Amino acid sequence: MSWNTFGRVLRFTTWGESHGPAIGAVVDGCPPGLTLAESDIQPYLDARKPGQNKFTTQRKEADEVRILSGVFEGKTTGTSLSLLIENTDQRSKDYSDIANTYRPGHADYAYDAKYGFRDYRGGGRSSARETAMRVAAGGVARKVISEVSILAYVAEIGGDRIDPANFDVEEIGRNPFWCPDAQAARRWEALVDNARKAGSSLGAVVECVASGVPAGWGAPVYAKLDSDLAAGMMSINAVKGVEIGDGFDAARLTGEQNADPMRPGESGDGPRFEANHAGGISGGISTGQPVTCRVAFKPTSSILTPVESIDREGNATEVRTKGRHDPCVGIRGTPVVEAMMALVLADHKLLHRAQCG
Amino acid sequence: MSWNTFGRVLRFTTWGESHGPAIGAVVDGCPPGLTLAESDIQPYLDARKPGQNKFTTQRKEADEVRILSGVFEGKTTGTSLSLLIENTDQRSKDYSDIANTYRPGHADYAYDAKYGFRDYRGGGRSSARETAMRVAAGGVARKVISEVSILAYVAEIGGDRIDPANFDVEEIGRNPFWCPDAQAARRWEALVDNARKAGSSLGAVVECVASGVPAGWGAPVYAKLDSDLAAGMMSINAVKGVEIGDGFDAARLTGEQNADPMRPGESGDGPRFEANHAGGISGGISTGQPVTCRVAFKPTSSILTPVESIDREGNATEVRTKGRHDPCVGIRGTPVVEAMMALVLADHKLLHRAQCG
Amino acid sequence: MSWNTFGRVLRFTTWGESHGPAIGAVVDGCPPGLTLAESDIQPYLDARKPGQNKFTTQRKEADEVRILSGVFEGKTTGTSLSLLIENTDQRSKDYSDIANTYRPGHADYAYDAKYGFRDYRGGGRSSARETAMRVAAGGVARKVISEVSILAYVAEIGGDRIDPANFDVEEIGRNPFWCPDAQAARRWEALVDNARKAGSSLGAVVECVASGVPAGWGAPVYAKLDSDLAAGMMSINAVKGVEIGDGFDAARLTGEQNADPMRPGESGDGPRFEANHAGGISGGISTGQPVTCRVAFKPTSSILTPVESIDREGNATEVRTKGRHDPCVGIRGTPVVEAMMALVLADHKLLHRAQCG
Amino acid sequence: MSWNTFGRVLRFTTWGESHGPAIGAVVDGCPPGLTLAESDIQPYLDARKPGQNKFTTQRKEADEVRILSGVFEGKTTGTSLSLLIENTDQRSKDYSDIANTYRPGHADYAYDAKYGFRDYRGGGRSSARETAMRVAAGGVARKVISEVSILAYVAEIGGDRIDPANFDVEEIGRNPFWCPDAQAARRWEALVDNARKAGSSLGAVVECVASGVPAGWGAPVYAKLDSDLAAGMMSINAVKGVEIGDGFDAARLTGEQNADPMRPGESGDGPRFEANHAGGISGGISTGQPVTCRVAFKPTSSILTPVESIDREGNATEVRTKGRHDPCVGIRGTPVVEAMMALVLADHKLLHRAQCG
Repeated sequence: MSWNTFGRVLRFTTWGESHGPAIGAVVDGCPPGLTLAESDIQPYLDARKPGQNKFTTQRKEADEVRILSGVFEGKTTGTSLSLLIENTDQRSKDYSDIANTYRPGHADYAYDAKYGFRDYRGGGRSSARETAMRVAAGGVARKVISEVSILAYVAEIGGDRIDPANFDVEEIGRNPFWCPDAQAARRWEALVDNARKAGSSLGAVVECVASGVPAGWGAPVYAKLDSDLAAGMMSINAVKGVEIGDGFDAARLTGEQNADPMRPGESGDGPRFEANHAGGISGGISTGQPVTCRVAFKPTSSILTPVESIDREGNATEVRTKGRHDPCVGIRGTPVVEAMMALVLADHKLLHRAQCG
Repeated sequence: MSWNTFGRVLRFTTWGESHGPAIGAVVDGCPPGLTLAESDIQPYLDARKPGQNKFTTQRKEADEVRILSGVFEGKTTGTSLSLLIENTDQRSKDYSDIANTYRPGHADYAYDAKYGFRDYRGGGRSSARETAMRVAAGGVARKVISEVSILAYVAEIGGDRIDPANFDVEEIGRNPFWCPDAQAARRWEALVDNARKAGSSLGAVVECVASGVPAGWGAPVYAKLDSDLAAGMMSINAVKGVEIGDGFDAARLTGEQNADPMRPGESGDGPRFEANHAGGISGGISTGQPVTCRVAFKPTSSILTPVESIDREGNATEVRTKGRHDPCVGIRGTPVVEAMMALVLADHKLLHRAQCG
Repeated sequence: MSWNTFGRVLRFTTWGESHGPAIGAVVDGCPPGLTLAESDIQPYLDARKPGQNKFTTQRKEADEVRILSGVFEGKTTGTSLSLLIENTDQRSKDYSDIANTYRPGHADYAYDAKYGFRDYRGGGRSSARETAMRVAAGGVARKVISEVSILAYVAEIGGDRIDPANFDVEEIGRNPFWCPDAQAARRWEALVDNARKAGSSLGAVVECVASGVPAGWGAPVYAKLDSDLAAGMMSINAVKGVEIGDGFDAARLTGEQNADPMRPGESGDGPRFEANHAGGISGGISTGQPVTCRVAFKPTSSILTPVESIDREGNATEVRTKGRHDPCVGIRGTPVVEAMMALVLADHKLLHRAQCG
Repeated sequence: MSWNTFGRVLRFTTWGESHGPAIGAVVDGCPPGLTLAESDIQPYLDARKPGQNKFTTQRKEADEVRILSGVFEGKTTGTSLSLLIENTDQRSKDYSDIANTYRPGHADYAYDAKYGFRDYRGGGRSSARETAMRVAAGGVARKVISEVSILAYVAEIGGDRIDPANFDVEEIGRNPFWCPDAQAARRWEALVDNARKAGSSLGAVVECVASGVPAGWGAPVYAKLDSDLAAGMMSINAVKGVEIGDGFDAARLTGEQNADPMRPGESGDGPRFEANHAGGISGGISTGQPVTCRVAFKPTSSILTPVESIDREGNATEVRTKGRHDPCVGIRGTPVVEAMMALVLADHKLLHRAQCG
């Protein structure tokens, strides 16, 4: 029973609103003896940090994380880790005028319907700001699964896809889009900049690959590794779809086309798979292949074009979002996708160890 | 921590292997005083039942459910409900020859990698037979959310989609494919029959719509209604992708195109939405619109065409599946998708009541 | 969130009413590869079985357990274990006359207050019959902690205590009271028989010792080993008190008297403790000493002497229990205390393994 | 699965070490719309605060709580509440000399055995300082159960009991012992002062009564109200025993003596009970009577008298505690017992609402 908690063995709970004094996470169940310092987590936060270029929201946040508990003499103690980030650049006035109106596509109306009222400043708890703490917690999770390397990148913006032929891992860090295709990155520069200038927004698809996951993580039926990945990814703000391996494309293949043949591997290794349509998960359990998933981000609903809406009294009105926003939230969602992959895998590593030693 | 349990407040736990003596589910947290009898559950099981036509596996199972506890004088008592179905038609010999080889695309290798061995008879616990108990538990869940009506149908088989122009709810029950488009149903008859004869298999996409869900169910951040739906759907055998509302298509829209404008509703009602790109969920909470999702089923890996594989000792071999199988598992997956929708919504109805009264 | 589930990693869920067709348990999270058969569980059920002598209820139940899932070729598969016992000797007529009255001290009134009605046959879900499934699940748990040996015995009946000087482990199995003191056993024979003849009932105190528990099981703060033991023991029918180690007596000692001094142990061993006031648990974590607890059972409320009560309409009435009952429920509670100790320890063994490897 | 989390629906997670920068709690699942401010919580923290008189540890802590999230315009929003208290008066030097030795009766050895090392400063996570956050979370819980009033008091110190004939609620706040018996309070003054001067320590028994709990809270079998109370109380530092109602005394009564007869109540009320041996809980569910429990606190192991022990290398040594400690931890445990009672009841109020509306 956990509204703000995620995980089974390695669990984390987040708290904080977009315009409150701070946001934080408590990470519980972390194994003891792992070296951990703020400097292990900060780089991931910096990657997600807003205001770094004109393609993301201009809100400026240092996003400096502090570890308040659970670490002693540089090592995790096995007790609960408290991670905290202070909010510094809040412009609540940007939101004062929508306190009484519902922004279509935002959680405004749903929150009021559920709770009777809401913290409207910057979306309060429903703000993507919460994802900063997932990234922080993810930094801890990466320590737990040091054998695994995780890579996420943007594969598509506004329907414009990367060309697999141009895929270059090195390129990902060279552009502001986490784009592995230099040519696509150039196209997206114009695409996103135009959307920004027009006060419009674009959707995106993020792909994530986890290498080094041994066979055997996951569990049958309801604690499936893919089921937990789906839950984790779908819980990210603005995400509307999740695929494992070939996902929806697999629904258009025949059994012959979708097969992942196995060949004998090197001695000591598991089998050598000749394809990975399954995305490294079979029956809810990892096969030793790379674990792959794709995540669909909708365009943010914060646009300058007026949209018909209603106010809290139910009267007709129009909404035009003037606050600072991302023209394409999927870009900054990329480090969040990586973090959720790390958190789910770390949890399942411990879960597997619990049952199978 | 629950390998075989799903849910937060209304929880169910399933047990049983494809070729064991029986399969069952325990449903916990059900409100008291609901009228419940086997006859309330059986129709949903009959809809999923195998061996009903040539388009599904020829395994014959009566799938007669018995309620062993939790009901007194025709009403739920609020204590745990035990549901049990006896297995009758098991042909273990069909599987004896693959006890020592790994069927690519099945959980065989992953189970062995995790547990060291496996019950190979009909896939044991990884068999889709487990989904019968989800359907049974779903029958209980529907009692909990009598205000909601749920409809799932097959929208696509082997890449051949229905035409929205032909959508006819009445048609869904008239063909063996849960297909709302009479013309598509005719095309699929040939499509699936050819696959069956060729010992091949096809993927499918199932769509599900829940009407009557009030605004306010769900919860922020990690107990989002869409996050739980994603987990539930992705936990169904052979599912590789889940979308809420427009899903991946939303990633190709602009903020203007993806907007769901709100207009004043009838007095007493909530707002009138002029679109439902969001699938009835905003910020993880229902908006009062129909809750919609799409689920991708891969083609079953059980095909006659030999596929390269290895045996338990790691030696190269080939696998040809001779057992009885569904040429398109998505068809029989349709009642399972409905059941998971019912179970997630019922759980969130109670979860909402817990916090918001 | 689990009304009928206990445990964190090794979890079990029970179902069934006293006078329903059967009772059962689903044990989830059990490690794979453990040899398990009905014959491993049955002896513990036989020890608890009713109707074995004049000192327990005369209800006759074979209590034959069947394992319906989770075991293949004699070994646990790591999937959910379904345990089932059919009810055979139900005399519902015994209870028909109290369908409309509340037996003081029973759950009758509380169940009606909570659920609006109840299954009154033999107490329905609130019957001690449920504990048979704890004993069955405990048989599985013992397989998980084969390094631990658990011994429970009755230390006190109706205020008459055993004399530590007479403690003889061998004696425990020789009398119908699980009494380690032959002289006390003789005294109790008259004591309990008189209570039985008078239609009265007696309370009892059960002590339980678990040897072989390594240091390090348990967890700080809320998953303390002693906290989970307290929850488990207090959840047994008729239990009103739980003590760890010296329990309430420790509240009457000084820090000097309550100290458990440590001396260097044999090489390889942990320390040698010169006392065990703490009951083998410190800060919620096992110390390597025997884990000890004491459990208080109230006298059953089912007595022949009329007690003032009310009926469902709130009218004054009197209740005289004519059904078959235990003159001292603590006696048959002894195997249940052993089972709960086993279940809590097994759960914490896996929980410890999850975090600390 | 929660090492540092307690609760089912209303859940709280605590973090922080005795000598870290701060301690905190995240309270999740709180209903929306409750008025809440620091001033609602502070009084309970002040009651527990150390250094208020010579009968408690001389550590001086302001224990000023801050609410960092979950409250907007003075009302709870239904999202996670973050409560934080900064540590101010840490004298780590007091502990430096025991970094390498195990204090008998403390968690030192057990933590090292589990985690391989420990934060030895003031006991780190195992310090009673953690209980400050239970008291803070309890302040929130009290808002959830405004219909209930909770009273805890010390009934016994060092074996010296209060006289029920002298029971005076007003007296409880007038002495530093939460003692309802003025004469006992005077005796305890000498008793505790002598223990303090001698560097010794005393145990205590705390009693807690919750009035206004309606019938129907709790749940059968494993989510019993008394089972959760036992878990909550036993999780408090230094607690070794828990009783509900008459507890162990009930084990010495006959069924006739232990009966709680029911009489017709005033119209609209429930029945009038003529006794409350059961402590207001029957079958795990509240009966509408006051919920009562007794909690045994051991004497703290921190004493000046040298106790034989070993160091981390296993060598024989002696331990004499020179740090600042409570001569009787049960005294400051009293507000913690109240807080745990509030937290368990609030959780069960919401849990009941979830299932029974």
